[in-house]
Amino acid sequence: MKILLVGGHGTIGKKVAAALKGRHELIIAGRNSGDVRVDIGSEASIAEMLRQVGKIDACICTAGTGFYGPFATMTGEDMRPGLEGKLMGQINLVLRGKEYLNEGGSFTLTSGIASEMPARNGSCVAMINGAINSWVLGAAQELKRDKRINAVSPGLVEDSYERYGAFFPGYDLVPMGKVVNAYILSVEGAITGKILKVWN
Amino acid sequence: MKILLVGGHGTIGKKVAAALKGRHELIIAGRNSGDVRVDIGSEASIAEMLRQVGKIDACICTAGTGFYGPFATMTGEDMRPGLEGKLMGQINLVLRGKEYLNEGGSFTLTSGIASEMPARNGSCVAMINGAINSWVLGAAQELKRDKRINAVSPGLVEDSYERYGAFFPGYDLVPMGKVVNAYILSVEGAITGKILKVWN
Repeated sequence: MKILLVGGHGTIGKKVAAALKGRHELIIAGRNSGDVRVDIGSEASIAEMLRQVGKIDACICTAGTGFYGPFATMTGEDMRPGLEGKLMGQINLVLRGKEYLNEGGSFTLTSGIASEMPARNGSCVAMINGAINSWVLGAAQELKRDKRINAVSPGLVEDSYERYGAFFPGYDLVPMGKVVNAYILSVEGAITGKILKVWN
Repeated sequence: MKILLVGGHGTIGKKVAAALKGRHELIIAGRNSGDVRVDIGSEASIAEMLRQVGKIDACICTAGTGFYGPFATMTGEDMRPGLEGKLMGQINLVLRGKEYLNEGGSFTLTSGIASEMPARNGSCVAMINGAINSWVLGAAQELKRDKRINAVSPGLVEDSYERYGAFFPGYDLVPMGKVVNAYILSVEGAITGKILKVWN
């Protein structure tokens, strides 16, 4: 398969890339590095990336994050980068990318455990993850010609522990291999409209 | 209680208003009518409304909707009004409104069945409703001084049947009284962080 992996140099993305690259033609998109460049917060940038890449069999997005910070002082503006990036960026990747997706192809988006178990300071990310999960349910029943879409919802992954572990007290550490497996299941399996929760 | 009801002239809002007005001091906010005017898609308009209304014991929002239409041609722009209104509007109502909410007060937002059971053409609304539900989980654990927040998630309500029933084949009709009860439970009860699903 020809697979476009957006965010392929991130914590999760690079492990997904390593697992897929032996078996597939992998095109890595990133903001500052990769085979093609993209800012998923910009619809024009997404359109340009897709034009450069052309027809694909699968698109995975592991890019995007959201605001973490004190609720007492959080503003709508603080939420904007995540709203335009991880939320609308992933949605625009599907809305525009579906024209480039070959019959039987798939989208795999990334949400996260915060949709149901937000950590302290994590209400913005909770909102984004919940939005992506429900969007996937709606999009799955609309895509034509056997095109599929799923979301992987990772918990606190092993490789993020050093940087972020202190913000998630009591969250089980998730082995990277399990998270990578969820992306593989979505891309190579037959499932659609699923939220693959990898929380421990 | 002094209750601010945003969207008090909508299909659900007017039934909620009728149920609350005998027992509480009710201030109705609407885009084109009401005791105060507000465009929830504008943070400045929300701020001005709150300034006019002052301290409150509860805030209910039944305002806002989202794009329904063919997925094949839907764009990010189509999703924008719902994103800025029902999604960010309700969030900004909480972020700014919490400063006006008395100790022990509550927010009650509105999501909907589409978060889990989107109808055809309903992926945008699904996304918005899923976002609101997860946001409420995050916000509930952050609000201070016994302030509470819940979401009411209505299904296809009786009073919408004539206008929208054809778009929701197979959805159970929900009696208005049950939906109104969910808002009352959120405002007058002790619950917080709950998604009150009123789907049949």
